[in-house]
Amino acid sequence: MTTIGFIGLGSMGLPMATNLRGAGYEVLAFNRTREKAQAFAKEGGWAVDRPRDAAGAGVVVSMVSNDRALEEIVEGSGGVLEGLPQGGLHVSMSTVSPAAARRLGATHAEHGCGYVAAPVFGRPEAAAARKLWICSSGAERGRARPILDALGQGVFDFGEDPGAANVVKLSGNFLIAAALEAMAEAFALCEKNGIARAAVASLFSSTLFACPVYKNYGDVVAAQRYSPPGFRLALGAKDMALVLGAAHESGAPMPAASLVHDRLLASVGRGRADLDWAGLALAVSEDAGLRR
Amino acid sequence: MTTIGFIGLGSMGLPMATNLRGAGYEVLAFNRTREKAQAFAKEGGWAVDRPRDAAGAGVVVSMVSNDRALEEIVEGSGGVLEGLPQGGLHVSMSTVSPAAARRLGATHAEHGCGYVAAPVFGRPEAAAARKLWICSSGAERGRARPILDALGQGVFDFGEDPGAANVVKLSGNFLIAAALEAMAEAFALCEKNGIARAAVASLFSSTLFACPVYKNYGDVVAAQRYSPPGFRLALGAKDMALVLGAAHESGAPMPAASLVHDRLLASVGRGRADLDWAGLALAVSEDAGLRR
Repeated sequence: MTTIGFIGLGSMGLPMATNLRGAGYEVLAFNRTREKAQAFAKEGGWAVDRPRDAAGAGVVVSMVSNDRALEEIVEGSGGVLEGLPQGGLHVSMSTVSPAAARRLGATHAEHGCGYVAAPVFGRPEAAAARKLWICSSGAERGRARPILDALGQGVFDFGEDPGAANVVKLSGNFLIAAALEAMAEAFALCEKNGIARAAVASLFSSTLFACPVYKNYGDVVAAQRYSPPGFRLALGAKDMALVLGAAHESGAPMPAASLVHDRLLASVGRGRADLDWAGLALAVSEDAGLRR
Repeated sequence: MTTIGFIGLGSMGLPMATNLRGAGYEVLAFNRTREKAQAFAKEGGWAVDRPRDAAGAGVVVSMVSNDRALEEIVEGSGGVLEGLPQGGLHVSMSTVSPAAARRLGATHAEHGCGYVAAPVFGRPEAAAARKLWICSSGAERGRARPILDALGQGVFDFGEDPGAANVVKLSGNFLIAAALEAMAEAFALCEKNGIARAAVASLFSSTLFACPVYKNYGDVVAAQRYSPPGFRLALGAKDMALVLGAAHESGAPMPAASLVHDRLLASVGRGRADLDWAGLALAVSEDAGLRR
C-alpha cells in the first residue's frame, strides 16, 4: 500500500483525505488542531504531530486556508521542507496567491523536491463525492495526476508555471463573484418592479444560464437564504483580495473585481463574514430600500 | 386563414414574420424601408404602406429598434392606434424601456385595445429556428400565446404589468453584459500570466459555467473575433442605458450595470459601435497592455 502525507483536515481536507484512504493510500495526516487528526486516525488513517512527519511519506498533499498557513506548514519549524526527501513531491491544493505558489515552487526546487499547484473548485459535498474540478500546474504535475484523479471528476492542465493553476482558480472565483453581484442587482431591480425573484432566477437558470453557478446560486440569491454557508463570505473577500493582488502584479486592471471586492468588504463590515458569500446580495437589496 | 399584421422586418423581425407565415398566418407586413416589405411580399406575404394597415388585421406584432421607433409606429400619423379595431391586440416584441411599455399599455387600453409586451432572447439565427425565449406580460397576454408559441421555444409569464417583461428582458441583457466584462477581465489576467485564453474558456464553459452564454461568448472572447456582429455593440450600450434608466426609476442602484455601460460607451468611443458587443473585451485587453 502506498503511503502519502496529508496536511489540513478542514471542511475540504477531511473528505479529500478520506477519499485518498478509499483509493487505497495509507494516509499520514497532520492538522493544526490535533483532535481532528486523532478522529481521522480512529477511522483508519494515521495522525502525525508535525507537517514534516506527513512529508516523510515522500509525497504530501496540503489543503490549508491561506498563504500564511501554507508558508507556515512548508517553511516553519517542523515543516514540509524538513521532512520531504530528495525527489519528494508536495501537491499544494489550497487557494493561495500565484506569487506564493511561485516562490514555494522555487523553494521546493532548491530542496530537490517538486511542488505542484492543484487548487480545486467545489464545496465540501463535492469533495466528499469526488466531484471536484481541479486545475494543476508545475513541472512535476504528471506525478500528481493519480492522486488528483482520486479526488475529483476532472483535472485541467495549465503547464509548468506553479502560479498558473492559482491564477485560473482565482479567475474562476472572480467569475462566480461577478455572477453573484450581477444576479443580486438584476433580482433587486425585478423585485422593485413587483416581479418575483424566483421567477426571474428560474427563467435564466433554465435558458441562457443553465449551468451550476447560476442554477445553484440563483436559487440562493432568489430565496435569500445565506446560512449555513457553503463558502464563507469572509473567505470570498480574501479570494477577491488575491485576485486584485494578482491583477496588480500582472498589470491587468479589473474594475469588476474591484467592485465585488468592495461589496464583500462592505458585507463583512455589516457583520456578514460568516454568511455564505452569496449574502453579498443583502447589501444590494438594502441599497434598493428592500431591506431595513 | 387568420390574418395578422407585422411591423419591422429587420434582422430579427424578418425571420419572425416568415415563421408566422409558416405557422399558417396571412401576414400583412409594414417596414419603414419599403424594399424589405416588398421582398417579403414576393415570398408569399403582403406588403402594406402604413402601420395602421398592418394593425387593421386586428392583431399586430411589432419588432422595432427602440422606444422612439415604437412610439412612432404606434402613435405617429398612420400608426397602429389609428388602425387597430376595438378589442384589437398589439404584441410588442421590441426591447424597450419598461416606462414606454407601461405608457403604451395605458394608451392602448384607452383605445379599447390590448398591449402585450413580449421581448425575446436570441439572435437572428435563433429567431429563424424558432428557438427564441420569450418573456410576456400585460393583461391580455393569454391571447398572444399562440402567436408567441409559433415564434419561440419557450414563453415565460410575468403577469399583468406591461412593463414587467421588459424589466426581465433588460435584466437578462445586463446579466450577459456582466458576464462578458467578467470573462474579459479574467481572460486578460490569465493571458498576462502566460495562460492561453482558450484553455481558460474551455475549463469554465465545460464545468461551473456550462451554459449557452459562457460557452458561446467564452469562445468569442477567447478568440477575440468580434466581427461580423451577432448583436451590435452600439445596441448593447443602448440596452445598458435602458437598464440604468429602469434602475433609476426603480430606486435600485446597479453599480455593475454602470460599469458595463461605461465600458460599452468607451468602446463606442474607440470606434467599435459595429462590432459584436463582446468586443467590449478589447478595451479590457488594451488597459492591460495586451493590445496597442
